[in-house]
Amino acid sequence: MSNPVDPVALTAALVRCPSVTPAEGGALVVLEEVLAEAGFACTRVDRGGVANLFARWGARGANRSFGFNGHTDVVPVGDASAWTHDPFGAAVVDGWMYGRGTTDMKSGVAAFVAAAVDFVRQFPPDGALIVTITGDEEGASVDGTRALLDWMGAQGERMTHCLVGEPTCPNEMGEMMKIGRRGSMTAYITATGVQGHSAYPHRAKNPMSALVRFLARLEEKPLDEGSAHFDASTLAITTIDCGNPANNVIPARGQATVNIRFNDLHSGASLSDWLHAHARAVTEATGVQIDLKVSVSGESFLTPPGAFSAMIARAVEAETGRVPVESTSGGTSDARFVKDHCPVVEFGLVGKTMHQVDERVEVAQIHQLKAIYGRILRDYFA
Amino acid sequence: MSNPVDPVALTAALVRCPSVTPAEGGALVVLEEVLAEAGFACTRVDRGGVANLFARWGARGANRSFGFNGHTDVVPVGDASAWTHDPFGAAVVDGWMYGRGTTDMKSGVAAFVAAAVDFVRQFPPDGALIVTITGDEEGASVDGTRALLDWMGAQGERMTHCLVGEPTCPNEMGEMMKIGRRGSMTAYITATGVQGHSAYPHRAKNPMSALVRFLARLEEKPLDEGSAHFDASTLAITTIDCGNPANNVIPARGQATVNIRFNDLHSGASLSDWLHAHARAVTEATGVQIDLKVSVSGESFLTPPGAFSAMIARAVEAETGRVPVESTSGGTSDARFVKDHCPVVEFGLVGKTMHQVDERVEVAQIHQLKAIYGRILRDYFA
Repeated sequence: MSNPVDPVALTAALVRCPSVTPAEGGALVVLEEVLAEAGFACTRVDRGGVANLFARWGARGANRSFGFNGHTDVVPVGDASAWTHDPFGAAVVDGWMYGRGTTDMKSGVAAFVAAAVDFVRQFPPDGALIVTITGDEEGASVDGTRALLDWMGAQGERMTHCLVGEPTCPNEMGEMMKIGRRGSMTAYITATGVQGHSAYPHRAKNPMSALVRFLARLEEKPLDEGSAHFDASTLAITTIDCGNPANNVIPARGQATVNIRFNDLHSGASLSDWLHAHARAVTEATGVQIDLKVSVSGESFLTPPGAFSAMIARAVEAETGRVPVESTSGGTSDARFVKDHCPVVEFGLVGKTMHQVDERVEVAQIHQLKAIYGRILRDYFA
Repeated sequence: MSNPVDPVALTAALVRCPSVTPAEGGALVVLEEVLAEAGFACTRVDRGGVANLFARWGARGANRSFGFNGHTDVVPVGDASAWTHDPFGAAVVDGWMYGRGTTDMKSGVAAFVAAAVDFVRQFPPDGALIVTITGDEEGASVDGTRALLDWMGAQGERMTHCLVGEPTCPNEMGEMMKIGRRGSMTAYITATGVQGHSAYPHRAKNPMSALVRFLARLEEKPLDEGSAHFDASTLAITTIDCGNPANNVIPARGQATVNIRFNDLHSGASLSDWLHAHARAVTEATGVQIDLKVSVSGESFLTPPGAFSAMIARAVEAETGRVPVESTSGGTSDARFVKDHCPVVEFGLVGKTMHQVDERVEVAQIHQLKAIYGRILRDYFA
């Protein structure tokens, strides 16, 4: 019987691969070697210049097929001279490993790959294990996890549940898991009126007045008060611009941008309709044309709390002594794509230093994370 | 007895003086010669690089002292090549004289100087005639009519009534006189909040939301519905600016400008108080600091309709067949300074082409205007 896979050594091996989005940097090659040796059938699912890895242990289309999802690409180093240690060196100092991707999320990938390999060797399950790793989560995310899921759909590959190993804990290991995320969208607003002299506003059609009216309507009342598992949706005016230097002239045109983070009471389409309805009302009242360009970067999603999330919470509690909060806070992740395939939950370690100079992970947390993932697999297939 | 002064020849002589603000261009020299020859005591009241002319016929401090006020400075030519005729040539073609200042307001000055000179020669009145001409009405207006009035105050010079010869008729000769003007002010607004991530607006203080709220309050209801002699006051948002390119960032600061034209129901001070009260309310509600820089360029004023305006209306009707409307519309004029000295009314010819390329005056209107001014003088001293 093989030795257990050391998740710290595997994290270090991955950190040493300079896989800044969209470069593969050797990271998927490292993982494929480890997985293939344990009997995983590995397939590279590259698309649009992005490298992605699909790996399955067990039979395709098994009744129970547990999936892990993660990414090996990392954000740029930033000011390299500001780092205390080589950002691709994986130096371990006083129990911390330094390097870009140590928290986001090469340690998470190493932990679940190590757990998966050990598990299939020790307790070959009645079912399948699927590992999907993308090389583009930090970038456009068009040819990453989406490409993997598209390919899986075409091949008849199926996960029954999936766990995304992103860092989810704000400060303490084990304190939070994610069962959903808010959606995000941006509306670019252009108001076109009729220029005129500011002494005779009735002869002009003031686009700035129309914008104020439109934006005041949007902010008149909260979008909602939150829902069972989500905070309230939010709306932020991020800019208003005109550039008219003449105080005796009413300008012809003005612009504004609004960013909305929305929960499961809304969708990109419902909010787009809402925005257009207000725009039409203001145009009717003022004669100023209000045009909208709406860009939805992610819909909200929720995997309702249930047996799956409870199982993950139990494993976290057993290994850390903490019961993780079931949260839907934060930005977006690839879970927004996976949720269309199967129930998905996110759990990982403390993400505090992600994207920062001197990004680092507590080495003990990598071991703890592997133990949690291993316990989840045993419970799932028990 | 001398021949009557030809107001058309005098207009032409003035147009040929290139008196673009603040250049005197020889215009006051021409006028001083004509006035002095008729017995007017002339004094140049130059201040701050601006040339101004004071002329009085009759005794200082007379019981009845009629004043004419006007300016010989003109706005720049603009695109000289776009003119059909030399802008300083005073060419007469088909009954129209072309040139910068032909309507605004060298013809008006020529008409009242010609009328005044003829009058004192023909009907030497029991009283005084005062003519004040400035070289800076189109510019900053700080050292123009104000300098003349300051000097007059110091010298004990006094007008009992004054007529400003600005063009007042929109389309037809005789259709409108001005008995007042709206005031004008501009407020420069700066909103300073706290920057933040657009996903967490409650952690930021959004200056753009505060500006929208502030501006929506200002536009919530009309300032007034107009008064006995004035149209409704108006408020125009002329610009809103921020320049934040990042839709995931709430900016720290934004700016806006508002221009207000106000009638006799308000003053610069009362409106400034009103703006500050709204700013304080929004700051209290949002935590965003709203700072205002308020600039009042002119208070509103009114010479209530009465014997003086009725006398002018009668003269206009007698010469043109039209009863002039007593209006308070339009921008500002030096009447806003004169009103602190004595009752003031404005009447002049059709101003349609003022400030434009190919500015021109109908020659017949200059004769008509001189006749009206002459009739006013005869009535006034009758």
